[in-house]
Amino acid sequence: MNSDLMGEIQSGRSEFLERLRIYLNCQSVSTDPAYAAGMRDARRFLTGFLDGMGFSGIRELDGGVGGHPALYAECLNAEGAPTMLVYGHYDVQPPDPLDRWKSPPFEMQERDGRLYARGISDDKGPTMIALEAMRAYLEVRGGLPINVKILLEGEEETGSPSLPNILKQNADLLAADAILSADGARWRADLTAVNVGSRGNGGFEFSLKTADMDLHSGRYGGAVPNALHEMARVIAALHDTDNRVTVPGFYDGIVMPDPATEADLHAIPFDGAAWAGGVGASEKGETGYTTLQRLWDRPTLEVNGMWGGYQGAGSKTVIPNEAHAKITMRLVPGQKPEAIRDAVKAHIAALVPPGVELTFTADRGWTKAYTVPAKHPLLMAAEEALSETLGEKPVRVRIGATLPLSDLVSRELGIDTVMFSFSTADEQFHAPNEFLRLSAIDDGIRAWICILDKIGNQLPDLYAPYRQK
Amino acid sequence: MNSDLMGEIQSGRSEFLERLRIYLNCQSVSTDPAYAAGMRDARRFLTGFLDGMGFSGIRELDGGVGGHPALYAECLNAEGAPTMLVYGHYDVQPPDPLDRWKSPPFEMQERDGRLYARGISDDKGPTMIALEAMRAYLEVRGGLPINVKILLEGEEETGSPSLPNILKQNADLLAADAILSADGARWRADLTAVNVGSRGNGGFEFSLKTADMDLHSGRYGGAVPNALHEMARVIAALHDTDNRVTVPGFYDGIVMPDPATEADLHAIPFDGAAWAGGVGASEKGETGYTTLQRLWDRPTLEVNGMWGGYQGAGSKTVIPNEAHAKITMRLVPGQKPEAIRDAVKAHIAALVPPGVELTFTADRGWTKAYTVPAKHPLLMAAEEALSETLGEKPVRVRIGATLPLSDLVSRELGIDTVMFSFSTADEQFHAPNEFLRLSAIDDGIRAWICILDKIGNQLPDLYAPYRQK
Repeated sequence: MNSDLMGEIQSGRSEFLERLRIYLNCQSVSTDPAYAAGMRDARRFLTGFLDGMGFSGIRELDGGVGGHPALYAECLNAEGAPTMLVYGHYDVQPPDPLDRWKSPPFEMQERDGRLYARGISDDKGPTMIALEAMRAYLEVRGGLPINVKILLEGEEETGSPSLPNILKQNADLLAADAILSADGARWRADLTAVNVGSRGNGGFEFSLKTADMDLHSGRYGGAVPNALHEMARVIAALHDTDNRVTVPGFYDGIVMPDPATEADLHAIPFDGAAWAGGVGASEKGETGYTTLQRLWDRPTLEVNGMWGGYQGAGSKTVIPNEAHAKITMRLVPGQKPEAIRDAVKAHIAALVPPGVELTFTADRGWTKAYTVPAKHPLLMAAEEALSETLGEKPVRVRIGATLPLSDLVSRELGIDTVMFSFSTADEQFHAPNEFLRLSAIDDGIRAWICILDKIGNQLPDLYAPYRQK
Repeated sequence: MNSDLMGEIQSGRSEFLERLRIYLNCQSVSTDPAYAAGMRDARRFLTGFLDGMGFSGIRELDGGVGGHPALYAECLNAEGAPTMLVYGHYDVQPPDPLDRWKSPPFEMQERDGRLYARGISDDKGPTMIALEAMRAYLEVRGGLPINVKILLEGEEETGSPSLPNILKQNADLLAADAILSADGARWRADLTAVNVGSRGNGGFEFSLKTADMDLHSGRYGGAVPNALHEMARVIAALHDTDNRVTVPGFYDGIVMPDPATEADLHAIPFDGAAWAGGVGASEKGETGYTTLQRLWDRPTLEVNGMWGGYQGAGSKTVIPNEAHAKITMRLVPGQKPEAIRDAVKAHIAALVPPGVELTFTADRGWTKAYTVPAKHPLLMAAEEALSETLGEKPVRVRIGATLPLSDLVSRELGIDTVMFSFSTADEQFHAPNEFLRLSAIDDGIRAWICILDKIGNQLPDLYAPYRQK
């Protein structure tokens, strides 16, 4: 039925890989101001590509709070068809630690059926897959079967600080029936699944200070506080021996899945020990829950960085006067981000003893957990497209990670989000040697063509009951 | 009586300061291989200066284990007088954190009656004070009142790994009646005191590993171990709520001072709160002991550095797979270094849970605590010299810091050590903005001239009962 499109995609494969290579070459690390030029490079590349494909109205959307702008483009010629806001993000995680990469992080390299580069799986590859399906449509048929608005964010990896303003200030421009997201990876390579929800997140940094300067460990040792001992005590006290977070109120209001959904979860074939062993880790988490429940239905509090004192070669006999920690949390349905933030900060403050100065800094965006409605028409279209393309009915799963967009869009635009990414969760996101399976490119482009068709056959009215604004 | 010498010292003051400036300019950081050139610079400077003063037999003594050599020189023309091995060290601590220095660390700067530079107080200033007294003697009188051998070590700040071999291999060359040390700072600016002992030390680094790589905190968070959580638990568990070290056997065999010495200690005027407040800290330590006891008579275990995960700008949502800590201990009389090392490592190993990989590295030199015999003739000479020069009988005190030399020399050469340094313990050793009081230069040179005279009036036989080899 779509052999004309598939032919175009096959004959354009080497150009596709070349475009992907150039996009990955842009060092678009959003968290570190040193990479500002790489962020600009990524926006310039996307602008040129979208313009060449036939998208119009291309512009940068700035939240007005000094952050990285998002890129917008549209193609709105499918009269009577639904309108989808297609989402992706062009920013990536920092490449550190650099010495662990087998090839330079910003140069795409193919090895053993995989493409390696920072951001190839999260989220540059999946974005380019979605765009390639649309490019083929526009090239071969001169139009898309649905109306498409594209929003490519530049701050997904830093908690989306500008996104609330971008959505608020451009509510009319971004109005759509639903969000179809090219972000939010597939769970496993061996199981066809569709994501129906994600955890929320938030975080901050805090510092402890015990003296005006580092002190000589002989001349002061044993008689004054050591900032690292104090930090260790605070961090250690945040979890109990059952690996439960000790913050009072942390688990208040959590909505656990209904019994049928929980039974479905326990029916999913999953070998936790093998899953953890695949990255050299062991299973460890909150007592009383399975690994899947810990990942999907239970919240976490994780220290992402902790440091103080001397880290150089050899030894330095100091009592460090300062210690620092970066903390993030993953939240589940029912948890209120602001309440969690305040409770965790209050608990840390209560753990810090007299004589130790506590400072909180670097509050990052706080996002609620999200769940897509069980009978949402876009979820139906996604399930049909995956069944047809991959020959297997997808299992409904959640992800432990966060799509800040889902929660924000629900709040600001009143619409729902379905994730339709073709990266896979084991592809070393946020770590050295991030990769994308080459097979995902074919599967993904075919599935995107199929879902565009499926949505094109839906009446926009189907979406009305789910639109809250 | 010594007006000829004092005249020479006064007229040579500006040359003295210039020599000190050049010596401080040598970036002789022993712990970091990046400073190898600075270590060579310091040895070259000292060689030239000692040669010019009239010392002979100048050579580098290498322990044969690849470390930094010590510098040796001698002046042995005082027939019938005792022979002193004068000790100092030419290596210094790293200057980090650089941004806390008010002036460049390796450029001497005078401000408000103080000289600032890395190593000026520990131990380059005190060494140059001792040498200046000898220079004046040699310049004005053509000889010294005692026989002097000089040993300037290059690894004091890294636990003296080569020193045991240097002493063993050169026992005849270094043979002396006692050690007169230009290292081991005065306790306070407002109290004339003599140090009669020091704590021992030792340390190592250890690492925890929980996975092959950093993991995405959404995709793995809550279900695998976090190396920083594990490290915090281990570090926090090393002390109990009474700030006692929890390692089994850590306090075994400790010899506390006799009641008379303890009464003397309690009689010393000391305001612990003001002492700690002077560096912006509070008093905190082992329950049941005063601050002076904690510093002089009780052992410690301190974390000097702890790190893992992301430390850059912004946030990075990783579960860190590695955590590191540097630990040093200060030991008191009765503690056996090797037993302590083994006990601490065994305790850490017992604290690490299954699924976490533990590695020990960077074992540093282990040194016992040291006490100078109560009636040692060199201690008598030092007390007399301080009484005469400063007009006040010195109080006997200990120091919490470590002179690896005292323990090693006692073991290898069978002789005792008396500390005769003119730095003061509040001069920001091992920290930014290290300084030396200008007044210490005059006091120190006069006292060194006086002690050389006092020893010159002693018969070498006085030392025989204290020599163990």
